[in-house]
Amino acid sequence: MARWDPGTAERLTQAALELYTEHGYDNVTVTQIAERAGITRRSYFRYFADKREVLFAGSERLPAALRAAVVDAHPAASPLYAALEALTQVGTALAEHIDRTAARRAVIAASPELQERERTKLAMVTSAIEEALLQRGVDGEKAELAARLATVASQSALDRWAAGRGENDFETCLQAVVTSLRELLTDDVAPI
Amino acid sequence: MARWDPGTAERLTQAALELYTEHGYDNVTVTQIAERAGITRRSYFRYFADKREVLFAGSERLPAALRAAVVDAHPAASPLYAALEALTQVGTALAEHIDRTAARRAVIAASPELQERERTKLAMVTSAIEEALLQRGVDGEKAELAARLATVASQSALDRWAAGRGENDFETCLQAVVTSLRELLTDDVAPI
Repeated sequence: MARWDPGTAERLTQAALELYTEHGYDNVTVTQIAERAGITRRSYFRYFADKREVLFAGSERLPAALRAAVVDAHPAASPLYAALEALTQVGTALAEHIDRTAARRAVIAASPELQERERTKLAMVTSAIEEALLQRGVDGEKAELAARLATVASQSALDRWAAGRGENDFETCLQAVVTSLRELLTDDVAPI
Repeated sequence: MARWDPGTAERLTQAALELYTEHGYDNVTVTQIAERAGITRRSYFRYFADKREVLFAGSERLPAALRAAVVDAHPAASPLYAALEALTQVGTALAEHIDRTAARRAVIAASPELQERERTKLAMVTSAIEEALLQRGVDGEKAELAARLATVASQSALDRWAAGRGENDFETCLQAVVTSLRELLTDDVAPI
């Protein structure tokens, strides 16, 4: 058997999600996940450092993927558009796994520890977008704000997409969120 | 001596900020902070659980204060306006301590552990605003999005305010951020 096998990593993620959904994150052990995926506990640690990281498989590649997508966006694209386009590419890749995404989000929502880890991931996403926008020549304050805004938009789009069980695709959800943001900002800010 | 004295809590915060700025967060001990504030290490723990929490003094009151301010906003205020008004009240209270706020932000920016704690605080801020908006009868998706948007706006406003050493007041910074957000969303989203 290969030392690292993508099929096994995939099975571990699936097994972990099932077990966390059935018994709650706190009540599941690495041994149980490994067993359900048909490998030993010892082999598990070739794939993930602990029982938390299996839920964040691939997220270490997210910042670099987003950075590249933002940098490669059309030269004339505005900061926010470049960021949203990059997030759409990544979000659409996620969209292949609607059941898994929805289950993952439910598990995370029930655990403060996992929420903390998820926030760290989002902060890395925001930083990656910000850096890429700076590289595109966007000024500092604008790059930071556009990156934060794009991250919030993608979070809410993912919420809507998961809540709708993928009925609308991710891009449609993101467009709806952008429309809502625009409404919140144009109708609502002027003092009463 | 009183078992809990606000003047002492204040001195501890000041001492911790000085020491963290001088030596770096990782290199300072509770004993050093207590000594500089003129109390014993043992007394320190009447005030704060550890050396991290001294930087978050009062933040446990933030969610309730924001929730009340959002609920008490003018009945006709829109969701985002109610949230921004509440954050302005709280931000303006912070504005009395510009030096401390700027120092605190610099210390946090240098430590992943503190950034994590700060993100947890911000997540509580977002949740508090969201709950208060729901209480005002705002629908779920809109309440969540408005709360996230308001949190991002206040973060960026605080950045600008601290970077400008308080030259413009917090409310002015927040208005500028809202203008930038509106520009990002209106000029920039349409596909190129």
